Amino acid sequence: MGNEHLKFMIEAQKEAEKSLSDGGIPIGSVLVKNDDIIGRGHNKRIQMGSSILHAEMDCLENAGRLKSTDYKDCVIYTTLSPCAMCSGAIILYNIPVVVMGENENFQGPEQYLTDSEVELINLDLDSCKDLLGNFIENNSELWDEDIGV
Amino acid sequence: MGNEHLKFMIEAQKEAEKSLSDGGIPIGSVLVKNDDIIGRGHNKRIQMGSSILHAEMDCLENAGRLKSTDYKDCVIYTTLSPCAMCSGAIILYNIPVVVMGENENFQGPEQYLTDSEVELINLDLDSCKDLLGNFIENNSELWDEDIGV
Repeated sequence: MGNEHLKFMIEAQKEAEKSLSDGGIPIGSVLVKNDDIIGRGHNKRIQMGSSILHAEMDCLENAGRLKSTDYKDCVIYTTLSPCAMCSGAIILYNIPVVVMGENENFQGPEQYLTDSEVELINLDLDSCKDLLGNFIENNSELWDEDIGV
Repeated sequence: MGNEHLKFMIEAQKEAEKSLSDGGIPIGSVLVKNDDIIGRGHNKRIQMGSSILHAEMDCLENAGRLKSTDYKDCVIYTTLSPCAMCSGAIILYNIPVVVMGENENFQGPEQYLTDSEVELINLDLDSCKDLLGNFIENNSELWDEDIGV
């Protein structure tokens, strides 16, 4: 299962890298149902002037309209611990498992997710930490905007 | 202040009515900063095949990229008690006041908002209850999809 998680996290990281190459914030996400990727996305604050398209939100949007019976079989992968907005979306749709790349550059309301019976798995990957960490170091004002600081 | 709130709630309700006339779910929202409407939106699940454009999210998106110093002077008006996703967005951006039209057709995590120091004001309006209530009565499956049931 560890390798499976890593395989999908690499896809989330590809999304983060795509965002970076487009001049955006390098956070990516994929939504997986029964081992198939059914949605993928990345932060689009810069690319689309968006205040709501965090990686997980863009991923859920790109997955399209789903039923609750679909979401219950899903795992959402994200390169970073989900913020309050993304955590709320995960709770709204009762997505049962979140796999994150890291929670050192930012930590969302993980206790709230856990209290809402969402399983959290932190892969604690240096690759995710470095990708975003380097970006934050050079774009602190933009980063603050993205996390509402 | 009551009349002021009602004035802006009427604008949120216009958004809900616009959604209905476009064949969508009748929930609307406006974002107000220092007595000016700086964003407005409505639920676009049907119109755009969207899983994330609840009224408040569409409203925040249409307000564009803002700084935390902007959000702290804002009040968000919504015709319905905000769901977990929208509540999370409100908490992410530290919007200090939520004015809702009603919370009978649906009630979001209001305690979570209050615990996060967001002030909640419920205008408890029959006009908002009726507009959405009639829609739900005739579209229960769609409504369940919108609230993740």
